[in-house]
Amino acid sequence: MEFTLGQIAALLQGKVEGDENLGVSRIDKIQEGKAGGISFLANEKYEQYIYDTQATAVIVSNDFEPKQEITCALIRVKNAYTGFTTLLEKYAELNKLAKIGVEEPSFCDQSSAIGDNCYRGAFSYIGKQCIIGNNVKIHPNAIIEDQVHIGENAIIHCGAKIKSRTIIGKNCEIHPGAVIGSDGFGFAPQEDGTYKTIPQLGNVILEDNVSVGSNTTIDCATMGSTIIRKGAKIDNQVQIAHNVIVGENTVIASQTGISGSTEIGKNCVIAGQVGIVGHIKIADNTTIAAKTGISKNIKKRGQTIFGYMGMDLKDFLKSYSIFKNLPQLNDRLRELEKKE
Amino acid sequence: MEFTLGQIAALLQGKVEGDENLGVSRIDKIQEGKAGGISFLANEKYEQYIYDTQATAVIVSNDFEPKQEITCALIRVKNAYTGFTTLLEKYAELNKLAKIGVEEPSFCDQSSAIGDNCYRGAFSYIGKQCIIGNNVKIHPNAIIEDQVHIGENAIIHCGAKIKSRTIIGKNCEIHPGAVIGSDGFGFAPQEDGTYKTIPQLGNVILEDNVSVGSNTTIDCATMGSTIIRKGAKIDNQVQIAHNVIVGENTVIASQTGISGSTEIGKNCVIAGQVGIVGHIKIADNTTIAAKTGISKNIKKRGQTIFGYMGMDLKDFLKSYSIFKNLPQLNDRLRELEKKE
Amino acid sequence: MEFTLGQIAALLQGKVEGDENLGVSRIDKIQEGKAGGISFLANEKYEQYIYDTQATAVIVSNDFEPKQEITCALIRVKNAYTGFTTLLEKYAELNKLAKIGVEEPSFCDQSSAIGDNCYRGAFSYIGKQCIIGNNVKIHPNAIIEDQVHIGENAIIHCGAKIKSRTIIGKNCEIHPGAVIGSDGFGFAPQEDGTYKTIPQLGNVILEDNVSVGSNTTIDCATMGSTIIRKGAKIDNQVQIAHNVIVGENTVIASQTGISGSTEIGKNCVIAGQVGIVGHIKIADNTTIAAKTGISKNIKKRGQTIFGYMGMDLKDFLKSYSIFKNLPQLNDRLRELEKKE
Repeated sequence: MEFTLGQIAALLQGKVEGDENLGVSRIDKIQEGKAGGISFLANEKYEQYIYDTQATAVIVSNDFEPKQEITCALIRVKNAYTGFTTLLEKYAELNKLAKIGVEEPSFCDQSSAIGDNCYRGAFSYIGKQCIIGNNVKIHPNAIIEDQVHIGENAIIHCGAKIKSRTIIGKNCEIHPGAVIGSDGFGFAPQEDGTYKTIPQLGNVILEDNVSVGSNTTIDCATMGSTIIRKGAKIDNQVQIAHNVIVGENTVIASQTGISGSTEIGKNCVIAGQVGIVGHIKIADNTTIAAKTGISKNIKKRGQTIFGYMGMDLKDFLKSYSIFKNLPQLNDRLRELEKKE
Repeated sequence: MEFTLGQIAALLQGKVEGDENLGVSRIDKIQEGKAGGISFLANEKYEQYIYDTQATAVIVSNDFEPKQEITCALIRVKNAYTGFTTLLEKYAELNKLAKIGVEEPSFCDQSSAIGDNCYRGAFSYIGKQCIIGNNVKIHPNAIIEDQVHIGENAIIHCGAKIKSRTIIGKNCEIHPGAVIGSDGFGFAPQEDGTYKTIPQLGNVILEDNVSVGSNTTIDCATMGSTIIRKGAKIDNQVQIAHNVIVGENTVIASQTGISGSTEIGKNCVIAGQVGIVGHIKIADNTTIAAKTGISKNIKKRGQTIFGYMGMDLKDFLKSYSIFKNLPQLNDRLRELEKKE
Repeated sequence: MEFTLGQIAALLQGKVEGDENLGVSRIDKIQEGKAGGISFLANEKYEQYIYDTQATAVIVSNDFEPKQEITCALIRVKNAYTGFTTLLEKYAELNKLAKIGVEEPSFCDQSSAIGDNCYRGAFSYIGKQCIIGNNVKIHPNAIIEDQVHIGENAIIHCGAKIKSRTIIGKNCEIHPGAVIGSDGFGFAPQEDGTYKTIPQLGNVILEDNVSVGSNTTIDCATMGSTIIRKGAKIDNQVQIAHNVIVGENTVIASQTGISGSTEIGKNCVIAGQVGIVGHIKIADNTTIAAKTGISKNIKKRGQTIFGYMGMDLKDFLKSYSIFKNLPQLNDRLRELEKKE
């Protein structure tokens, strides 16, 4: 999509210095600015680049005073950084809403109801008795099985798989290849050493404004629901097992795994490659550093936890600093023993 | 699917107290029972809920004696818990078998042979010279490449990818997004620092009753076969490299990785986020705790292993308990040094 | 595909002992040789197998002198091992190039340009304004979104997802289920505890000869590009966050995660389940052992790093050897304390 500098200035409540009718169709870093693109200058560290940028226009603050001649157009706004992020958001929003209609071939069972202004990409699949809200975008090759509800403005990216009975709130975004609602890992050991599959009959509920990363897997509950509460943001390749509850506005980074029936509080920040055992509770506002293993309840709010077996961060670092010097500590001990 | 209480009682060899013609189409926890659903009461801890549940019917044991009035219908059976799990299994089985026939568009090369009572979802793909057994269910967007054999009653869930030459046994279940038989990670270093791809010409064999979780990857052998023996159960996001062998009835939890040519014994239990190096053997009946790293053969059967470098669980916990107190230990040592 | 022994001997510049017109269509290990297959003997450890193999032919070196009668045909070459790997490579290459043309239904926007000798599998999707080079193979269910460039001879395996604006070099291979160019994980915390999505407007660039494993995820840059330099080889289920740069000929094993804006040098070898924090630099020729956590820059080239918090390998092993004996060390200390 191409926009004129005039249109952008109107959006940002700024004014153009140069030709208002020039068009831009791309957003670049100022040091990589090229013709047809727009950049911004908010940090004086980057000021050098504005004097020889190839960008068509640069967004600057009202108080910016060039020290050399400038060849590109300027859009002056109150705050260049805020103006720029506003532009980014509008651009992304327009991009997301741009897709409308149905590409063929696609599949939609006649028992399902689809809202207005939806997009259904080629090879997307919608099973029986689904209810799809307005403005929902279902990208190519995405699968929506039976009896799924999807709230308005949600985006189901290409190749995401939404299994039967899943409920997805408004404004959720499910990234490519994510699997929501597949069977929990439940097997009952038998006397002969084999395992019998325990049917997984529950579902997954994503409340509003949840984001689920690429190739992440969220299993359905054995009975009842696996629940991701509103505003939670989940990165790529995260594993969430059956009957887990993730609290409001909790953020979970890539490759973390949460075992069955564990309950994570709200406003937690969980870094990458963390492992959390099943059937425990993590208090609100807990921060868990990368690669940490958690095997017990965390009852006190607001702690920062780290380590292979999940200790208080400071305690872990103290122990670890001595671990690094264990050979020397051993030598010191040997020295004392000799003196005996 | 709706069933009458009479049908369910007949299935469970029980008897109905109430209207045999009432229909139920859902299975709920007793504390969440709603009209049109059936629940069970096996644990007296939950008895309170039966007196005001909205469930249409509850399965109870023959010896259950209500202490208050009950408004829902009852199905009395010998053992309520066993009766309920039987019901769950039948329900799940019926659900799995319910899909039959071909949704269009789908793709199947004419050189492939498809059994009776199969399901092929829309956008499913079957390549050349495949042999697909009776009752196999291939869900939407699943890919079966060339020369694949799939045994009867197997389920290939949506978006699973079965690469050429893979052999899948009877009753296997491949969950969404799993990739079976992709190229092993083999590259030969060249003198100039680049790498040359080593062709991966083998295949993957899954024996009968194997379950493979969502987004799990199992690579084909360089030559010969990567083998998952009968009854093994593999969770989501597990990585199994080329030429690995996983023994009978071994269970592997999520996000575990097994490197090339390693052989895992039978009846092992491997927890989540475990890493196992290549070219080693793990004895039968080994238990490996979560996040453990294994870099050597485990020769003795029946051990429980834990830790970053895989020690006996008890030894690791003893060392770790002192690790947590290393600063104090260091202080004690310093105290002694001062006295010298 | 079937080849005669004469054709194979010509390819390998060798000569046939036996019937040149015999056909083979499979490559087997010598100990598993079956009729219709060809094997090789390069290591005398395996010599016993040649005397009773069922293989149609075996490749041997010119100087091989049988000690017993041999029933299969022989192809004599200068070096049996080199000859065999040449055969493997040719076979794999022929297999890869074998697919040509378009299977229907498939989807390709008319604004995209497709080169010669390409393959587009059923249910593959190509969006707007893409440029696809000659000999590119796009397998069933693969998704190429808008404005994607793919260089000649690249292979996009089944169900791989290439998001908008991605640039893929020549001879790249993207394995099944990989996601290239999905949104980076960027959210700005708001005062009320919620998070606002930061638009991710950059792209991913894969230079020539890059391999990306099954179900691996590579996020697009917030602005600018996430870059995988030429010849890098990435295994299955690796996570590469926004704005990361991976150097030339660097190899990354399965389940490793690299956080945002980190820069990995060239010719590095990174083992499995490694975690690397964001915004750091790893020097060229660094080796990182499995399960290592890296939280700081690695400035010196050619180191081998290991451990939960990334130490020099030798130092880590020294500390760890004492960690294993901490209970005994504690006892020794207690003994000294008693004597005071």
